[in-house]
Amino acid sequence: MARPTPLSGFPEWLPAGRIVEQHVIDVLRRTFELYGYAGIETRAVEPLDQLLRKGETSKEVYVLRRLQEDDEQATGRGHRETEHGLGLHFDLTVPFARYVLEHAGHLTFPFKRHQIQKVWRGERPQDGRFREFCQADIDVVGMGELPYHYEVEVPLVVAEAFARLREVGMPAVQVLVNNRKVVEGFTRGLGLEDVDAVLRSVDKLDKVGPEAVATLLGSEAGASAEQAAAVLELAQIRGEDASVVDRVRDLAARLGAANDLLGTGLDELAQLLEAAGRAAPGVLVADLKIARGLDYYTGSVYETVLVGHEQLGSICSGGRYDSLASDGATTYPGVGISVGVSRLVSRLLSSELVTVTRTVPSAVLVAVTDESSRPESDRVAAALRARGIPVEVAPTAAKFGKQIRHADRRGIPYVWFCESGEVKDIRSGAQVPADPATWEPPAEDWWPRVVAAG
Amino acid sequence: MARPTPLSGFPEWLPAGRIVEQHVIDVLRRTFELYGYAGIETRAVEPLDQLLRKGETSKEVYVLRRLQEDDEQATGRGHRETEHGLGLHFDLTVPFARYVLEHAGHLTFPFKRHQIQKVWRGERPQDGRFREFCQADIDVVGMGELPYHYEVEVPLVVAEAFARLREVGMPAVQVLVNNRKVVEGFTRGLGLEDVDAVLRSVDKLDKVGPEAVATLLGSEAGASAEQAAAVLELAQIRGEDASVVDRVRDLAARLGAANDLLGTGLDELAQLLEAAGRAAPGVLVADLKIARGLDYYTGSVYETVLVGHEQLGSICSGGRYDSLASDGATTYPGVGISVGVSRLVSRLLSSELVTVTRTVPSAVLVAVTDESSRPESDRVAAALRARGIPVEVAPTAAKFGKQIRHADRRGIPYVWFCESGEVKDIRSGAQVPADPATWEPPAEDWWPRVVAAG
Repeated sequence: MARPTPLSGFPEWLPAGRIVEQHVIDVLRRTFELYGYAGIETRAVEPLDQLLRKGETSKEVYVLRRLQEDDEQATGRGHRETEHGLGLHFDLTVPFARYVLEHAGHLTFPFKRHQIQKVWRGERPQDGRFREFCQADIDVVGMGELPYHYEVEVPLVVAEAFARLREVGMPAVQVLVNNRKVVEGFTRGLGLEDVDAVLRSVDKLDKVGPEAVATLLGSEAGASAEQAAAVLELAQIRGEDASVVDRVRDLAARLGAANDLLGTGLDELAQLLEAAGRAAPGVLVADLKIARGLDYYTGSVYETVLVGHEQLGSICSGGRYDSLASDGATTYPGVGISVGVSRLVSRLLSSELVTVTRTVPSAVLVAVTDESSRPESDRVAAALRARGIPVEVAPTAAKFGKQIRHADRRGIPYVWFCESGEVKDIRSGAQVPADPATWEPPAEDWWPRVVAAG
Repeated sequence: MARPTPLSGFPEWLPAGRIVEQHVIDVLRRTFELYGYAGIETRAVEPLDQLLRKGETSKEVYVLRRLQEDDEQATGRGHRETEHGLGLHFDLTVPFARYVLEHAGHLTFPFKRHQIQKVWRGERPQDGRFREFCQADIDVVGMGELPYHYEVEVPLVVAEAFARLREVGMPAVQVLVNNRKVVEGFTRGLGLEDVDAVLRSVDKLDKVGPEAVATLLGSEAGASAEQAAAVLELAQIRGEDASVVDRVRDLAARLGAANDLLGTGLDELAQLLEAAGRAAPGVLVADLKIARGLDYYTGSVYETVLVGHEQLGSICSGGRYDSLASDGATTYPGVGISVGVSRLVSRLLSSELVTVTRTVPSAVLVAVTDESSRPESDRVAAALRARGIPVEVAPTAAKFGKQIRHADRRGIPYVWFCESGEVKDIRSGAQVPADPATWEPPAEDWWPRVVAAG
């Protein structure tokens, strides 16, 4: 076959890129587990009616069909896929909600889970927007009720993971938070009842500017000029500490818009900002114009920007649902956040923010003197591996110079010579006697590492 | 929605099962990397014409269609999927061959890679046979040539991984090996030219028995009664050491069937059995009746049975291809093996061979005295996590007895009381003063562990 060409929207990494992606996933998983989130995976497919339940055609679901299905239909052999229709999941929230309902009897609540998997959306590919991409989600789901403090924990968990990734060259993040109760309380306090119309208008603020939003608030939400001005004033409030809460409270008092819902929302927001100030100073920012998702979220909402790469869009979003799932008898509230792993990794690679110390796992290449002594090289390799050192044996008994170049091309730092019983650091040229039962590489050479570029 | 029901063929694990699966994957990945195999992932989809290139309809490919595609076609907006047709990959070999051709200029050869991903086949689900399942593959691919010793390495890498998994309750394995050159050389030496017809007949041996196979060899491969008897005699040869090679050599000499191809194949097989005898005694077994895959493999072929669970089928198969991929100018030979992770894990779980020490990551539950002191509990948790100890904080400030029961239900071994500054091992009841800056759990309690059941 001729050289294949890439498929737009389906990113693949070379081995170096995969080391970066795997490191990001490992750090996320380890951080999630330090907070007690148990890992699960769900199947890639869900019944189409569930995927489309909320009119989610905007996610451009991929529908599955078995190749031989048409023949079988013709011959009268019906199959599940035909009967029910299966599609690839477009996020990990819909499958998780189904998993909770399906397995509720076997889970203990509140149930904290992490889930790191591919998802698929047939949208038009753009920078940072793919048709196949990896997400890393955490959610806490309660049975009947879920205390507010989990809305504080969830963004702090990802903030901690991102702090660990800053060590390898990831830029700083800002986790922008808002609270549906604050916006809804304020809006209703102003006398505007169509809260979702207000949110949809405010959501366009960054795109069309305040004047156009004021017009929209009038036409879509029935706001007077004064009401629109008040909504825009709220949307401009932004800050890292509890003074944000005081500013909203003062504004509402001045406009006579204060009420219980607003008060509850502000108490929650204050609690979140105080905890964030202790745990991750400077990372969480209350931003009262954040409106995306507030049509389905019922409390906190989170969006995360990579500082200096704001135009990439959010790399980590989520919020609180009063009803993540429900079987009629029981309602399961939840709060969660989803890291866009592919979006983040593709930017780390394309902007050359990070690099890797080598592209193969091996720290050592054991040279082969001649093919008849390969078993001796294998023995040295086995002795090193038994102590956890990644090793490969030279592919051929070429001249040693060629074997050293083979290591060099892969970034393998050490070459072992069995006959002389010596190991050479091919970067410095230093060659020393070594015993395969005791020698080990320095920690920084043991495994490939992801490091900040340049 | 009502309680959802499982989809046949799409397995999902509860958190305990996922700990087992994740452990299997982690051990495989770690072992692969100790041997220098670099991790990659490929996209889930390939062009349909590539998936069906070898008439692979038996794999029942899942075809993808974007939900809005029909509308777009009607309005004249063509899209790639429609033009080319995309399907979900049914293995990791076809995508890897394409990856090698696509990225050859950025890879160094021989290229050793591992790949652990889901694959999909719309076949009828059975015990151990799924529509969505996880495979863990290693392959070595050369540019133009690939030395035989990689055919020795590949089965020994998985044998080492399986040895590590025996420590947590996985049964012993037998890796059955054969060599296309031996079978083809012997068959041609007998004067039978339709080698593939011989292989297809021998492949049915376990199912239909030697008499029926003898008949098949006559009708399908044109074998005389003597030729059929000779083929069946070869197929009965089986053993762990190089005496197998002597037996084949003697048989061929007796029948006058010796030739160069047979000689080469027997030398290779001897090399493999000798290396296996050193590295993993008792695990590799030469079994001359293994014929599956010998229509496309050109040298070694591997099948792996779980001892005591032979009816499950192979949990790990592979072999050597002289042409894994080719772009016309360059041919890429390869050798690889694929572990059926889902098949293995589902048997470990369904036969209750393994269990886990707990179903959540947390080693410690920090109790909460009252909601106003939650920040103090959060501080203790943060101090423990800073030293890598997985911790969760109690969901509510319930009575301590209830908080202890919460830990107990999850299998969390330790409960921390901030007011008294004490930690309780809830299994023994022992409660001792502890400092969050220095206390740590014993190693066996640190993370959930997979252990042999019973």
